[in-house]
Amino acid sequence: MCRFLAYSGEPVFLTDLVCAPTHSLVHQSLHAAEAKTETNGDGFGIGWYGERVDPGLYRDVCPAWSDENLVNLCQQVRARMFFGHVRASTGTATTRANCHPFAHGRHLFMHNGQIGGYHRIKRRLEALIPDALYDVRRGTTDSEAIFLLALANGLAEDPVGAMARTLATVRDLMRAAEATEPLRFTAVVTDGETLTAYRWACDGSPPSLYYRETETGLVVVSEPIDGCRDGWKVVPKGGTLQARRGGPVVVSGPEAVAERIAA
Amino acid sequence: MCRFLAYSGEPVFLTDLVCAPTHSLVHQSLHAAEAKTETNGDGFGIGWYGERVDPGLYRDVCPAWSDENLVNLCQQVRARMFFGHVRASTGTATTRANCHPFAHGRHLFMHNGQIGGYHRIKRRLEALIPDALYDVRRGTTDSEAIFLLALANGLAEDPVGAMARTLATVRDLMRAAEATEPLRFTAVVTDGETLTAYRWACDGSPPSLYYRETETGLVVVSEPIDGCRDGWKVVPKGGTLQARRGGPVVVSGPEAVAERIAA
Amino acid sequence: MCRFLAYSGEPVFLTDLVCAPTHSLVHQSLHAAEAKTETNGDGFGIGWYGERVDPGLYRDVCPAWSDENLVNLCQQVRARMFFGHVRASTGTATTRANCHPFAHGRHLFMHNGQIGGYHRIKRRLEALIPDALYDVRRGTTDSEAIFLLALANGLAEDPVGAMARTLATVRDLMRAAEATEPLRFTAVVTDGETLTAYRWACDGSPPSLYYRETETGLVVVSEPIDGCRDGWKVVPKGGTLQARRGGPVVVSGPEAVAERIAA
Amino acid sequence: MCRFLAYSGEPVFLTDLVCAPTHSLVHQSLHAAEAKTETNGDGFGIGWYGERVDPGLYRDVCPAWSDENLVNLCQQVRARMFFGHVRASTGTATTRANCHPFAHGRHLFMHNGQIGGYHRIKRRLEALIPDALYDVRRGTTDSEAIFLLALANGLAEDPVGAMARTLATVRDLMRAAEATEPLRFTAVVTDGETLTAYRWACDGSPPSLYYRETETGLVVVSEPIDGCRDGWKVVPKGGTLQARRGGPVVVSGPEAVAERIAA
Repeated sequence: MCRFLAYSGEPVFLTDLVCAPTHSLVHQSLHAAEAKTETNGDGFGIGWYGERVDPGLYRDVCPAWSDENLVNLCQQVRARMFFGHVRASTGTATTRANCHPFAHGRHLFMHNGQIGGYHRIKRRLEALIPDALYDVRRGTTDSEAIFLLALANGLAEDPVGAMARTLATVRDLMRAAEATEPLRFTAVVTDGETLTAYRWACDGSPPSLYYRETETGLVVVSEPIDGCRDGWKVVPKGGTLQARRGGPVVVSGPEAVAERIAA
Repeated sequence: MCRFLAYSGEPVFLTDLVCAPTHSLVHQSLHAAEAKTETNGDGFGIGWYGERVDPGLYRDVCPAWSDENLVNLCQQVRARMFFGHVRASTGTATTRANCHPFAHGRHLFMHNGQIGGYHRIKRRLEALIPDALYDVRRGTTDSEAIFLLALANGLAEDPVGAMARTLATVRDLMRAAEATEPLRFTAVVTDGETLTAYRWACDGSPPSLYYRETETGLVVVSEPIDGCRDGWKVVPKGGTLQARRGGPVVVSGPEAVAERIAA
Repeated sequence: MCRFLAYSGEPVFLTDLVCAPTHSLVHQSLHAAEAKTETNGDGFGIGWYGERVDPGLYRDVCPAWSDENLVNLCQQVRARMFFGHVRASTGTATTRANCHPFAHGRHLFMHNGQIGGYHRIKRRLEALIPDALYDVRRGTTDSEAIFLLALANGLAEDPVGAMARTLATVRDLMRAAEATEPLRFTAVVTDGETLTAYRWACDGSPPSLYYRETETGLVVVSEPIDGCRDGWKVVPKGGTLQARRGGPVVVSGPEAVAERIAA
Repeated sequence: MCRFLAYSGEPVFLTDLVCAPTHSLVHQSLHAAEAKTETNGDGFGIGWYGERVDPGLYRDVCPAWSDENLVNLCQQVRARMFFGHVRASTGTATTRANCHPFAHGRHLFMHNGQIGGYHRIKRRLEALIPDALYDVRRGTTDSEAIFLLALANGLAEDPVGAMARTLATVRDLMRAAEATEPLRFTAVVTDGETLTAYRWACDGSPPSLYYRETETGLVVVSEPIDGCRDGWKVVPKGGTLQARRGGPVVVSGPEAVAERIAA
């Protein structure tokens, strides 16, 4: 399990959300409160949209709590949309290429969860990724494989539908392989303009996901960064959150993802 | 605060103590039970005596729990005497040169504790290290500075007396600088033959230190590696433990260190 | 292109071959003389056979010339058979899992060369690896893929035949994908007892490969480690070298690999 | 010896100078043309002035040529003034804290050169650094020690005079210690507004230093980044270059540094 944070709104310094709050993402790397693992020390990453169409990306393998480069970058970089992620590996190696967020073209993606019994379906799952996307795979995680498959399934045009189709495919492969551990998927994706968050698990127990509208914009988090739940709303299980930058936040219930996958 | 382990006796594979036990040192890197910090993820190190007079040393900056090299080395290396250490930094950078154990010639040293207000006495303390030893300083920790100063004070000939003199000097510098945080020092040193462990703090609250005599030898640890205290004995506060390899374990009370420093 | 060294014979300290010679492997990491690239600074690795059936492995991402752990380990470890490798990446990331040698069970494998146009056949090549071996893939290099495919093709029983079949498969995939860059393969594999070295390229220009019988054993290298060619023999293009530990060195010409692949 | 680059002028993306040119700083990390060492693979760093008074800093220990974070940051960050440095260690460890540029408050400093026989004067030199600056020392290099001592000597108010006094002190310590290797110092410092470059050596052989005024600003480099010398001017031996951002470039001869030190 991992912890993450996404922001969309008026440009703010990353440090205001990633480092400074009482229970900031960096604090959660050492002391997560709502995760299965308290420590999220297997690497980290930030992605942000600056002056380019494609996002900036800084990922490293050390724990977020001791990385002076991260602190420094977060103090310098101001962005209208950014992602932050601290990783607790479910088995794959601690390499930069296995750290979230993952970037492809103008897209950023990050994930908290797991594909149960991934090793039993890995080969079949990866073989579904088309050549052009297969070649940009840099790491070995299940998360990156889902991202690439979702891109192949039309993530750019239809973020919710493409991801529902991708998760249905993964779940089918798991069933065929008789995987007993669940598929859990709490994630966020963006193209730099629209942010889409998902919260689904095949066993009805997806990792937590909260959001809050602040004076400057929308914050989506694994767990509140101020250490209390006041003012934070929960994304419903099986549902999604979508927001175009500056536009209204649209939260959907199980019909968004859960029922499509079940269909 | 950190966690450590020392072994002296019949040659055993390092993995038997460092990786395999229920609450092994590697497990303690993520879930320490008796330390101020549960996570000890700011680097680690092992030192061992093989076919050479000088010890082998492997230290790295990633958390011990995810280092495949550590697992592999511990499975391959068998030694009659070895140290293992997982680090929770009290402020200095996470670099290899700041990881314990520290080696000099045939000596190995590792420490769990802190010099309160180190930044206020750092310059004066380091200036006490003689040129020849100053030049072999590789890192920036208070621990390495104490080790080098103790070597200058005669650690090779008189491990207990030299360390008592060193700690008295450090405490005097702290007093002069009006440092308010305590000096705490639980540590082990060896020349490859004799193991000396210390447990002292200026405020009477030194970090924990246990030992146990097994079928093959002596194990000295920050906290029991089997997750229960049965069979483990406590090194008394202010005291020491000394054992020549294959010889009897000699445990001394406050007269060994505490009273000498107070004198 | 990379540089490597393999040894089989009476136990010697790794440092005697890896670090100490005038033009040692560590020296070649900065100043290779016969490689396309003078610098081989994209990670390194050593593998050795100690008291266990399975080999020890130490790999890291920093350049070999500045790694104090490597120097230290090579001074401590004495082995009857060992591999050393310094890497110059042909494009894949600098991660530990992409560093040679690769280990599987009791086997070690290392490679100098490249699959031309690897990105065009990567997906098809990896899909040929059977599930059980696919799951132990840790990195993303063409070299590891060849090793796993060769294991699937019977490397343990027939090192030369299995590798010839594997290379023929790779070359066929390259042809089908109309890859224009060559397949070049200079490599060594061992099961801890028998060492097999290959030197083949589809364009007749395989990387260099030398060997020498010393007082203590057999040394196989990318380029001489003493900086001169006296006493070193060349493994012929398209051929192999095989030696059981303590047994005679058998060198074969193009009939060993080149003609089998062409067949 | 190292390679570096400094820019001051209209905001440009770092990639335009650090990564993109034919013989860019990243290219020089592998293939320096005018340095004693062709490879500068012992870490790297960039520092830049963005929206804050204090500069941003990104330093890491891997070679610049393989660091994807560096490429990514240089594509995202646009700055009016920035430094880039690729390091070839003269002996001290490869740690982030030993990589240039060094930052203190609003100042950035980077250095190419060496203090001959540094180990013989290290202790005395470091003891000259006042407490407040001693405590911010993070690494162990001679370069950082010079920077801190220069700050203590008034670098903020009088960059040329303070550095001349500092170098005279270092040279005096070297003479007293009978160091036989030379003191060589080609360096750049800035407070974010004024850039000061130095080129001096006690033996009259300082490392190379060039500059060029482009359409957007001033570029100061160890060696030309376009692979040819057309349009590049040389900073004279023993002299300095100074330029306030947007103001004229003032180049001084030996009277600036060399004669002051000799006095």
